[in-house]
Amino acid sequence: MSTAGQVIRCKAAVAWEAGKPLSVEEIEVAPPQKNEVRVKIHFTSLCHTDVYFWEAKGQNPLFPRILGHEAGGVVESVGEGVMDVQPGDHVLPIFTGECKECPHCLSEASNMCDILRINTERGGMLHDGHTRFSKDGKPIYHFLGTSTFSEYTVVHVGQVAKINPEAPLDKVCVLSCGMSTGFGATVNVAKPKKGGSVAVFGLGAVGLAAAEGARVCEASRIIGIDLNPNRFEEAKKFGCTEFVNPKDHNKPVQEVIAEMTGGGVDCSIECTGSTQAMVSAFECVHDGWGVAVLVGVPSRDDSFKTHPIHFLNERTLRGTFFGNYKPRSDIPGVVEKYMKKELELDKFITHSVPFLDINKAFEYMLRGEGLRCMIRMDA
Amino acid sequence: MSTAGQVIRCKAAVAWEAGKPLSVEEIEVAPPQKNEVRVKIHFTSLCHTDVYFWEAKGQNPLFPRILGHEAGGVVESVGEGVMDVQPGDHVLPIFTGECKECPHCLSEASNMCDILRINTERGGMLHDGHTRFSKDGKPIYHFLGTSTFSEYTVVHVGQVAKINPEAPLDKVCVLSCGMSTGFGATVNVAKPKKGGSVAVFGLGAVGLAAAEGARVCEASRIIGIDLNPNRFEEAKKFGCTEFVNPKDHNKPVQEVIAEMTGGGVDCSIECTGSTQAMVSAFECVHDGWGVAVLVGVPSRDDSFKTHPIHFLNERTLRGTFFGNYKPRSDIPGVVEKYMKKELELDKFITHSVPFLDINKAFEYMLRGEGLRCMIRMDA
Repeated sequence: MSTAGQVIRCKAAVAWEAGKPLSVEEIEVAPPQKNEVRVKIHFTSLCHTDVYFWEAKGQNPLFPRILGHEAGGVVESVGEGVMDVQPGDHVLPIFTGECKECPHCLSEASNMCDILRINTERGGMLHDGHTRFSKDGKPIYHFLGTSTFSEYTVVHVGQVAKINPEAPLDKVCVLSCGMSTGFGATVNVAKPKKGGSVAVFGLGAVGLAAAEGARVCEASRIIGIDLNPNRFEEAKKFGCTEFVNPKDHNKPVQEVIAEMTGGGVDCSIECTGSTQAMVSAFECVHDGWGVAVLVGVPSRDDSFKTHPIHFLNERTLRGTFFGNYKPRSDIPGVVEKYMKKELELDKFITHSVPFLDINKAFEYMLRGEGLRCMIRMDA
Repeated sequence: MSTAGQVIRCKAAVAWEAGKPLSVEEIEVAPPQKNEVRVKIHFTSLCHTDVYFWEAKGQNPLFPRILGHEAGGVVESVGEGVMDVQPGDHVLPIFTGECKECPHCLSEASNMCDILRINTERGGMLHDGHTRFSKDGKPIYHFLGTSTFSEYTVVHVGQVAKINPEAPLDKVCVLSCGMSTGFGATVNVAKPKKGGSVAVFGLGAVGLAAAEGARVCEASRIIGIDLNPNRFEEAKKFGCTEFVNPKDHNKPVQEVIAEMTGGGVDCSIECTGSTQAMVSAFECVHDGWGVAVLVGVPSRDDSFKTHPIHFLNERTLRGTFFGNYKPRSDIPGVVEKYMKKELELDKFITHSVPFLDINKAFEYMLRGEGLRCMIRMDA
């Protein structure tokens, strides 16, 4: 029996309050409205951003809310005006969208859609401002327009990447956010040449995805920088050839890297969000051609400070958002890279839990254990 | 009678002391040594950098010295090992060189040659550290390896661009430094698209050359920013379509420009060297695709400061040196652009004086009068 047009009752992990364990319970999911898609989530994984908004220490708390934004699923039904996907399509919901009409979507350089760009404050749908989730008539807020910690969710069609139906959703799911962010920062923005040298600041999941990008680009030296030396062994799997722990040196890490490389690396990717690491990442690239790419999100009041001569000596500093990928246009191609074994994803998935144990995924992340925990919705 | 291998006695404008008028007098110019070229200067123009080192307020004074680095001339004789040029060739001496063998010269991206990169402290020739200039046996120091305020000078072959002999030296002379620096910053680094918008900070000669680059790229809006509104009328000749005087506004100029352009310009070029202007030039470019290029040289203790979110919103900040041109490989092509009327130079030359009146050129520049003063060596 088709569920299209009907309210679906299903399980979701609801965050009722900041910092309190999620509660997996039955909720109602309304049918998709104009330009919306209802998706049955098969797999979802946990990203730092979920934890950040769950803790709600740095921004306006918005609860009850269904978090989650790294996921893979299948379209259940579509609302009015949706032409690009249909029921049965395999999709990745993406936390930032692509309208395909605004100046950003029309620019080759940008993926920061004017209409569907990430919005962490919005709790309802763009169409009417209302939520599609409720519990006994009480609305539950959306998160990033994705809210994938639910068996069914409603997403704007502009935030849905239609992918190869043969791709395993429990693997390509991680391309919804973190892995594409790091990988794209290297392959789309830093663009190291074959044989080049790359420094990666921060060896969490995003940094390791940046290293994976450098490995795929055939960089000859991939230098991992982290304050936690326990990460070094694992990082070798992602192509890192050398490691620097800034704590081991009594001079700035950019000087250490310059000495190791005869003047600096060809490119660097900053994945921590610390402004100190940003400055190091910029100052450690070679003059003449060095490119530094900022990925990590800084605190609101931070400031980046350097001597301008570092720029005049022909260094470039760029930032990226979601690895400069346009979600609908580009992510299906990244999935194909995985299918062709040009990009490895399995090694990012270090844990797996059934949906009912979703709070364990939070515990792993809070303990800094592993990279990605896959949450199986059908288990 | 050939002068090759002989000491040449000729007139030069010698700076005997910091800030004192140059003295045009007879000096001796030794023959070129290994990898050196002796050039008869036909025309030379005055650039701010000459004045800066003549005033010697910010760096080690090195006197007596023959200044000058924007010039056009003809090769008189060559030293051992020089293969690329021969007597009679028309050349532009360039203040920074290209060895064609170091990693920078082999990189497509860089023009910052390891061996012949600009060196403001060096007073002798690279080969033996000695000067080729003397007066009654007393050595006179070189400046930037060019010292073009002399009827004859000796230059390393790596600092000599061989150009089309039909090019008028009294015009293409200005491509030795300032005009290439500004023009290249736009066409090689900022690279505005046809129809794009460009902001130029500082409407001196270098800034106007950057505007000329934007005009040649067919930018649709070229916004000139300067604290001196007297420059606005002249700047129209160089393609500027609009003007902003930061003094006319009670908010930061980057906000004024963002409002004028619906979010920011496509690219900006900073030609003043003020760190405040650098920050404005960076923050006034559009998110998603904006590129800011730093050209102006900052003071030693300045620092550039901004919120890193401006980078993460996909802005790029780059610096350039000599417009990213490789002096020997690229400058002959820029001369050809002038010959094909793709680039206008005549409008930069606002004054002209005979060599004996060289101090008038300094007076014009100190008064901020005009753009370039052409100094005619044969007059």
